[in-house]
Amino acid sequence: MKFALSVTIKGSREFTEISKSEIEDVLNKAENLKKGIDGEFKINVNVNKDIKLEILSDYRAHSLFARIKKILSEHIGKKYHIGIKEIFVDKYEILFEVDKQPLKPISVPFAEVRFDGNLCNVLIKDADENFLTENYADRLINLIKEKVAKQYYEGKKEYWNLLWSSEKKELKFNTDPSEEMRKRGWIFQISKGKWFYFPQAAHMLNVMKTIAVEEFVKLIGFKEVIASNIKPLEIWLKTGHIYGMPNEIYYVANPKTRDESAWEHFKDVVKITKSIPKEELKELVDINYGITYAQCPMIYYALNNKTIAEDNLPLKIFEKTVNSARYESGGTHGIERVDEFHRIECVYIGTPEVLAELKERMIERYKFIFNEILDLEWRMADVVPFYMQHAGEVEGVKGESAKLWKGTVDFEAYLPYRGSREESKWLEFQNLSIVGDKYTSAFNIKTQTGELWSGCTGIGLERWLVAFLAQHGFNYDDWPEKFKRYVKREEIEKGIKFL
Amino acid sequence: MKFALSVTIKGSREFTEISKSEIEDVLNKAENLKKGIDGEFKINVNVNKDIKLEILSDYRAHSLFARIKKILSEHIGKKYHIGIKEIFVDKYEILFEVDKQPLKPISVPFAEVRFDGNLCNVLIKDADENFLTENYADRLINLIKEKVAKQYYEGKKEYWNLLWSSEKKELKFNTDPSEEMRKRGWIFQISKGKWFYFPQAAHMLNVMKTIAVEEFVKLIGFKEVIASNIKPLEIWLKTGHIYGMPNEIYYVANPKTRDESAWEHFKDVVKITKSIPKEELKELVDINYGITYAQCPMIYYALNNKTIAEDNLPLKIFEKTVNSARYESGGTHGIERVDEFHRIECVYIGTPEVLAELKERMIERYKFIFNEILDLEWRMADVVPFYMQHAGEVEGVKGESAKLWKGTVDFEAYLPYRGSREESKWLEFQNLSIVGDKYTSAFNIKTQTGELWSGCTGIGLERWLVAFLAQHGFNYDDWPEKFKRYVKREEIEKGIKFL
Repeated sequence: MKFALSVTIKGSREFTEISKSEIEDVLNKAENLKKGIDGEFKINVNVNKDIKLEILSDYRAHSLFARIKKILSEHIGKKYHIGIKEIFVDKYEILFEVDKQPLKPISVPFAEVRFDGNLCNVLIKDADENFLTENYADRLINLIKEKVAKQYYEGKKEYWNLLWSSEKKELKFNTDPSEEMRKRGWIFQISKGKWFYFPQAAHMLNVMKTIAVEEFVKLIGFKEVIASNIKPLEIWLKTGHIYGMPNEIYYVANPKTRDESAWEHFKDVVKITKSIPKEELKELVDINYGITYAQCPMIYYALNNKTIAEDNLPLKIFEKTVNSARYESGGTHGIERVDEFHRIECVYIGTPEVLAELKERMIERYKFIFNEILDLEWRMADVVPFYMQHAGEVEGVKGESAKLWKGTVDFEAYLPYRGSREESKWLEFQNLSIVGDKYTSAFNIKTQTGELWSGCTGIGLERWLVAFLAQHGFNYDDWPEKFKRYVKREEIEKGIKFL
Repeated sequence: MKFALSVTIKGSREFTEISKSEIEDVLNKAENLKKGIDGEFKINVNVNKDIKLEILSDYRAHSLFARIKKILSEHIGKKYHIGIKEIFVDKYEILFEVDKQPLKPISVPFAEVRFDGNLCNVLIKDADENFLTENYADRLINLIKEKVAKQYYEGKKEYWNLLWSSEKKELKFNTDPSEEMRKRGWIFQISKGKWFYFPQAAHMLNVMKTIAVEEFVKLIGFKEVIASNIKPLEIWLKTGHIYGMPNEIYYVANPKTRDESAWEHFKDVVKITKSIPKEELKELVDINYGITYAQCPMIYYALNNKTIAEDNLPLKIFEKTVNSARYESGGTHGIERVDEFHRIECVYIGTPEVLAELKERMIERYKFIFNEILDLEWRMADVVPFYMQHAGEVEGVKGESAKLWKGTVDFEAYLPYRGSREESKWLEFQNLSIVGDKYTSAFNIKTQTGELWSGCTGIGLERWLVAFLAQHGFNYDDWPEKFKRYVKREEIEKGIKFL
């Protein structure tokens, strides 16, 4: 890699009494400057009213500059009582190679990017001191590499590897269950992808919740926590959601102030026009949060910097009160592809070995529920882990020589109304992941000795309900006996009577 | 009242072939113009390239104008094939009296307001055709009257009338329960007024939920519905929340588009800078929703335009899954004054007579729970109904000759840590309202015969918990026997062990 950085340093007063050779001398003698630097560099100095530096280097010039600034600052402060007032990046050029040459042009903020074969030339403009001191340059280089790599894997088929499949079942029903519920008045659409559940549907969702809690969560030994529904954006900055999928988030904005007088004009306009001036509203609020995308990031945040006692491992906690929201594009469908849904999220933290065992136990419990209680036709597959997709990361874990299992299992159910088993898309109604140390590292969650991994399994109640109704239909008498134990027949047969 | 409206009407071409007297004649002969008008009016006409009208009237000139526009439009369309292209309000002046003269100046959008004693002169500027045809003027006048009235009741003490009081109890505990929970590691603050409940606190909240559901909700016969957490702003336009308390709402914004390319720059900036450019984010989203303030508006919305079968009355439904959010100013405190809380909302719809009976039954159940199970020192009071406060309405219902009870009962618990019974503020931990036909009218909810009223009672789980712990403390052995039946001792004694 090659770096060429030109910087202007402005002082608290002009540098007229300092000579070029004095500065060269100071830099030459500074041992701190060269320490640990693996590469050649050259510094050209020019002093006028300001100090101008040109750093030509094999090493990260912005890092060198940070050292130079410290050295100069000490010298001119002590000897001339001049402080450094402002830093201007006149030009910063970086040359580096990528593995494969890009398939189409690449653009990034702060810089112009040109490619000559595998060689990338980055010309940084609009940079301020932060750019040099806050590692922007390193991240910019990584971003370019990532964008090139993405051009190669884009459009490739997702990794999917069948692990297990239930027997083929004789299914009598082949209607879209959401549409059937809508017709029966069980559900009512509030807005795009968001539903209101009348008593019959509410009961069925609760049946699924009870089965999940009684037959899975409690038996595996998860302890309940209750999270906030409103996620500070900073949490997603740590997990990567905010750059991985910002286009799927429902954001939450709070009033800039609660002061009545600041809101008086807005209130008056609404009262007079009976409509909401949405641009005026935007000016009155700040976006600081989002609605839960998945419960686990906040659970990790609540454990931030904590050391969990060894005899509490594996730590198993679950959350079932917070609704999740995801902004779907046009493709919402009934209650199976929605903008808002109910999920029980189970999080486990422990040593890799113990999580591997726990994974097997959990899969056995799920098998029991889906085979014996819900009596579904379903299958399990290894897929590219969601937590890598969420963070916009490109490579899977399959290539790693992980000594234990790290990855995601998807649980998929056949929906007869979508077509044949072979050609239709099955519904992902459940997943289970072990994410390695991604979140335990990010949130600095530790124990006395040894490495901590974590993982989670999310139970989507709407998805369970859709899978069940799509295969078994709406006739109580046709339902599996073990399932019926959880259902109060009168609750699904007697709703609110409208005329 | 006096109205003086000057309007310019622009045609699809110039009105040069039409004379002033022809228009005067058309207007004079138009019977539709005068029909039902209770007052004098005079119209001055001027025709040039445009038609200019001056309406001087005792009656609402904007309404007259709507009629005139229709009459002229028909005449000039038929005879000259000219359409009306644009309407300009050159000047609109309204004179009216208010009951009492304002105490300080009043400002409103769209107009200048001057007072001479009780006489108000409104000079409307910046008005477009909507202003005349969409009733803006009427609402503007009401708004001015309301603002004057508000100046008089502002700062007055709220209405509060004691209805019932439990006996004074011997209370051993006098510590702030939120602070105690925080110290014990039961709760963790996520952001302003929003909390994460670790297993012990989650269990206690669940105990309160179970008591509320088993001992109140089910016994009174409420049926469960599940609402969306994300409320379209249009619902609050109907209930009045959006102009009553817009400064207390957490708003929800969705991406303008899910298209990756629209979000690429934002994502790149986050990746490079590791911070969130919030102004750029604002440009990428639209504010269309808010987080639930109370569950009832959406329940009414789900019943919009429905006719409920008489034998289903009183309709009793409840919602317990949706978190409520309210932007509090500085004054959040522990889990008792929060920005986000858990409430079971019970809504009832029926005839006034039946609701009056139901109210008594509900109060009896609450008395049982608070006296026998939670064993609280508490009281009930008649207060100014929340639904009038929410909509920013000024007058209470006490003055009305309502043949049956309409209003709100607050349930308040003594919190020893706040000071003496007499001087400290008791905690409102519960309320119960009958709101008359406010929402059944607004959402056009009907039955076969007779009038429908509605009401709701909201059970705040955090508030129940605070009231209980503030009086009984944290020692399981000190707790009332009937309450202990709901508690699993090990759940509150064994949390997650951190080092």
